Amino acid sequence: MKKLGCLTYGIVGLGLMGGSIAKSIRENVLDVQGATGKILGADRNAAALELSLEQHIVDETFCMEKVDVMLSECDFVFVCLYPHATLDFLCTHSAAFKSGSIVTDISGVKALLFENIEKFSREDVDFIPGHPMAGSEKEGFVNSSGGIFKNHNYIIMPVAGVKKENLELFKLLVSTMGFTRIVETDSVTHDSKIAFTSQLCHVIASALVDSAEDTGVTAFGGGSFEDLTRIAMINAPLWTELFLANKKELLAHISSFESSLSKLKNFIQNGDAASLEKTLTEVREKRISMGRIDSVYKA
Amino acid sequence: MKKLGCLTYGIVGLGLMGGSIAKSIRENVLDVQGATGKILGADRNAAALELSLEQHIVDETFCMEKVDVMLSECDFVFVCLYPHATLDFLCTHSAAFKSGSIVTDISGVKALLFENIEKFSREDVDFIPGHPMAGSEKEGFVNSSGGIFKNHNYIIMPVAGVKKENLELFKLLVSTMGFTRIVETDSVTHDSKIAFTSQLCHVIASALVDSAEDTGVTAFGGGSFEDLTRIAMINAPLWTELFLANKKELLAHISSFESSLSKLKNFIQNGDAASLEKTLTEVREKRISMGRIDSVYKA
Repeated sequence: MKKLGCLTYGIVGLGLMGGSIAKSIRENVLDVQGATGKILGADRNAAALELSLEQHIVDETFCMEKVDVMLSECDFVFVCLYPHATLDFLCTHSAAFKSGSIVTDISGVKALLFENIEKFSREDVDFIPGHPMAGSEKEGFVNSSGGIFKNHNYIIMPVAGVKKENLELFKLLVSTMGFTRIVETDSVTHDSKIAFTSQLCHVIASALVDSAEDTGVTAFGGGSFEDLTRIAMINAPLWTELFLANKKELLAHISSFESSLSKLKNFIQNGDAASLEKTLTEVREKRISMGRIDSVYKA
Repeated sequence: MKKLGCLTYGIVGLGLMGGSIAKSIRENVLDVQGATGKILGADRNAAALELSLEQHIVDETFCMEKVDVMLSECDFVFVCLYPHATLDFLCTHSAAFKSGSIVTDISGVKALLFENIEKFSREDVDFIPGHPMAGSEKEGFVNSSGGIFKNHNYIIMPVAGVKKENLELFKLLVSTMGFTRIVETDSVTHDSKIAFTSQLCHVIASALVDSAEDTGVTAFGGGSFEDLTRIAMINAPLWTELFLANKKELLAHISSFESSLSKLKNFIQNGDAASLEKTLTEVREKRISMGRIDSVYKA
């Protein structure tokens, strides 16, 4: 198997996620004795490129007009763009990938890619769509951090025919970056589950803030409101795209959540203490059996 | 003004909150050079009493049958029981409070107390209802901790006629315990705001867990679902009581949240990217202007 420390990594898009991936590879893979590999970075934002060079995260930078030159040198490419931009990028630059390279993305919705896969797939390049389940309410390279992946989940949806050794190499890389649970699934399952664990949560947090009477409520906060609305400090263009690109799945989960909410509301309305307490007891047990409470993430 | 370190504190109910208050007073007020005060504790649970003595948190314990003896010695009483039990306790034991003492409670809903205040109020005892805005999804003295109050809010609703020096003493005590923001308000405002920041959040978290298809979803979690549902590990009997005791306010907030959710759902349903992005942008700004993001609590 190829050695991670000797590969050339290409990051397309040095925002919060691309920057964090670059920093994590730098810290965990390349700042290691004997490592000879390097990281190349491309972005349309010159300031992000400059900063990534200055901080010695990236060895060489490329403007987007020159990105094909970069791609031709990379063994491992992370496309870290918004969902539609990811598809556009793959379609436009597919021919530039180095033969034998591994290409991945981080898009939060996969239907878009899988519906168009014949437009960019190549027999000599292994495409392993992925979704690192970590992030921040902050944005941009300036807020990126190699540490945000520690103990988090990484979902991968390898396309049929991917070389086994490349899949193993990919898993080894993300483990080395700090991810502890690599979930291998298909894009349909991914989009459905993510609509629940991620997109629905962002819709709920946004609706909760939207429904606040005023901005002074935090004087009455004890942590619950703060926990539920951290993610309401939302990247509006990105999440608009994610919500709409996964519309069908997301709407189904919103409806299901509305039913549960309505059930609890009716118990309260009717003063039905017995049903309320029974449901809350079941909820408590269900949540506990789900495991992975937040302390894991804050460790 | 009286010296905090020289007073006798009484804690009625050594559960998670009573235990945490006792530990915080022990650590911050009494484990200080020159302090001569003590903490007395009463509970119906013998194991909690025993543990509190063993850990040197409480100096003397009382079963509930003997609680009047304890109350007659205390300068400062914290009634740390469920809402209805708090009202019952105050009504039943009002005569036992030491003349000149300060009595407070921690109930999450205040209407119940204020509607019945003539049943337990005394001219020679200062009742200062309070609500420490901190907690945990864990329960019982065994999970209590003096550190959970650090940087949190304390809401107080002093009744008319409370002596100024006693109010100052109360504020000094909770500041010393670690609370950084003391919000003075009336019970109606408290119940309305808390229905939003606390009870609505618990209803939402519970509905979200209730609506989960299965308990395997955390494999697809990235922190959002975990953040939103920590409080779904809910104390069912307590929250059933809190929801029903603040029914009118809570139902109003649930309806308002449902409207906001429905608005976002319609934008998604209609593929209305412009309205969705506009609303999310406003939500982001609104949340940021609310301040007190969760990092404050995790510091």
